[in-house]
Amino acid sequence: MNTPTRTELAELGEFGLIDRLAKNILPALPETFKGIGDDCAVLDYGGEEFTLISTDMLVEGVHFDLAYCPLKHLGHKAVSVNVSDIVAMNGTPLHITVGLALSNRFSVEAIEELYAGMAAACKDYKIDLVGGDTTSSRSGLVISITVVGKVGKDKVAYRSGANVHDVLCVTGDLGGAYLGLQMLEREKQVFVSNPTVQPELAGKDYILQRQLKPIARTDFMYDLKEAGVVPTAMIDISDGLASEVMHLCKNSKVGMVIFEEKLPIDESAMETARDLNLDITTCALHGGEDYELLFTIRPQDFEKLKNSPHITAIGYCLPAEDGIWLNTLNNNHVKLTAQGWAHF
Amino acid sequence: MNTPTRTELAELGEFGLIDRLAKNILPALPETFKGIGDDCAVLDYGGEEFTLISTDMLVEGVHFDLAYCPLKHLGHKAVSVNVSDIVAMNGTPLHITVGLALSNRFSVEAIEELYAGMAAACKDYKIDLVGGDTTSSRSGLVISITVVGKVGKDKVAYRSGANVHDVLCVTGDLGGAYLGLQMLEREKQVFVSNPTVQPELAGKDYILQRQLKPIARTDFMYDLKEAGVVPTAMIDISDGLASEVMHLCKNSKVGMVIFEEKLPIDESAMETARDLNLDITTCALHGGEDYELLFTIRPQDFEKLKNSPHITAIGYCLPAEDGIWLNTLNNNHVKLTAQGWAHF
Repeated sequence: MNTPTRTELAELGEFGLIDRLAKNILPALPETFKGIGDDCAVLDYGGEEFTLISTDMLVEGVHFDLAYCPLKHLGHKAVSVNVSDIVAMNGTPLHITVGLALSNRFSVEAIEELYAGMAAACKDYKIDLVGGDTTSSRSGLVISITVVGKVGKDKVAYRSGANVHDVLCVTGDLGGAYLGLQMLEREKQVFVSNPTVQPELAGKDYILQRQLKPIARTDFMYDLKEAGVVPTAMIDISDGLASEVMHLCKNSKVGMVIFEEKLPIDESAMETARDLNLDITTCALHGGEDYELLFTIRPQDFEKLKNSPHITAIGYCLPAEDGIWLNTLNNNHVKLTAQGWAHF
Repeated sequence: MNTPTRTELAELGEFGLIDRLAKNILPALPETFKGIGDDCAVLDYGGEEFTLISTDMLVEGVHFDLAYCPLKHLGHKAVSVNVSDIVAMNGTPLHITVGLALSNRFSVEAIEELYAGMAAACKDYKIDLVGGDTTSSRSGLVISITVVGKVGKDKVAYRSGANVHDVLCVTGDLGGAYLGLQMLEREKQVFVSNPTVQPELAGKDYILQRQLKPIARTDFMYDLKEAGVVPTAMIDISDGLASEVMHLCKNSKVGMVIFEEKLPIDESAMETARDLNLDITTCALHGGEDYELLFTIRPQDFEKLKNSPHITAIGYCLPAEDGIWLNTLNNNHVKLTAQGWAHF
């Protein structure tokens, strides 16, 4: 008798698991323009635009800690991380549905707080919450949001369209969300060992907001529209810059070089990294959760966008065989590796 | 200082909670034709048809027990219960996304089994799985599926369109899924107390399938299409006939009478109820999870459908002030009450 094989989830990691599962999930309908493998699926329901859809789950104890994450912020963030996936396809978000599994340790008022945050996010992004499911769970809180949006058929930005010489850009700044998390974790430890100590979070508003209430970059879509530019490839930064760079390279079959000196870092993130003895470049490369956009554009399009206050050029595309590199401050070439996501 | 109010989830129940939350979730977009409150939200993205969307979550220990629910069946069921929501609006399902939270006690092979079931369901219903999210959880398995479909703008069946004198019909038969669950629970108890005893499930195939692998009634939509009939109101039976009757009455502002003698019950469900000393009518009214369709049609439309092998007329609509009644076998009039869902 053969013993059935048992492969541990940790052996594959999230991306390996998705790759393995997706092999057996092949789309069959003409309405499926693009299935698994990008920030959203792209569906053709016959109108002049494509319909975009994406699902993201947030799990207590994995993605958030209610010890320092207010439910209202959490509701807002759960919507933002989903909206960010629509924006990463250059689309306009329209609707969300919300699945909620929760234990009876939550009161009705607590759930109302969570929903107040989601409602506020809906207002911010001009989208409607149109349905969902609420059920009990044996332990923690699980939030599963699905977002639907639209995009012009000639405006979609996939992960796969980057070309050699395209300019690699990023919106906003990097590393803040990760450093905000480190601050919160530190203060939680202090509180656990001595509950009378007041938290030392003064002057940390920016990085705390980056962690607790990130904002999806719908504003940047207006810059793109105004400039008449469609990125050749785009992805949102949820797992960290390095991981997303690898995704773009893999999907577009290009290499890349990024320049450490160009990485946009906020002053307060820099300071916090120093205080915590962390390397700020590592935070920016691998921190994740910044929900900024990483995209490539043709050099001539960069000219049209270079005055946008929202973006920074951080590198450019190389032939695939040239590999993926970080050019450091002291001008060394270092091979880029992704740490990415390893929940299991 | 005021003590903040704490209302327990159990005080409100699922429907009360949804009502309370929905009050603050008002749709603002012209694209939102119908938000929270039916089996699906109805979205107008500009084509000739509406887009339908619905989300359903299945939580381990609440909706399923892996002690007797094979992962492949579970995957199939998770898709079916979502597809059923599209069918309940008289729509055609097209796409699903899958959110999965799971702990490392699951192997990659186990997840592949789950996905194999979902892939089989996609094939059965001619839909595509186009995306999702896979993450870890601290304990049990949570499956959150969102389904998207289409429906002609003049073909939508809401919960709210039933009129006095409309005929109340149901597809298939009732109570089987609940009795299947009772059999599985009984055998689990036997197994726990004596693991060497073989399960006594011979002859129970039908009700076990009803529980473990229910089928959404996409087939019935063809009957409707062929007869050129659109139900005045429709809902799928997830929480039990009585609960769904109450939903139709509340949303349509009508009363109803249903006849015990007309309730369609399969022979094996009847037998099992006898064996387990359960009242079969109670199983049919409150058992739930049959995923059949409950709908109302105009009397003249009933003529066109009455030869369909799939449907049974079980009652008719009354003025709202006449109330909601069960006419029993011995011709008593009993006020119908919903037990419905009370997970918390």
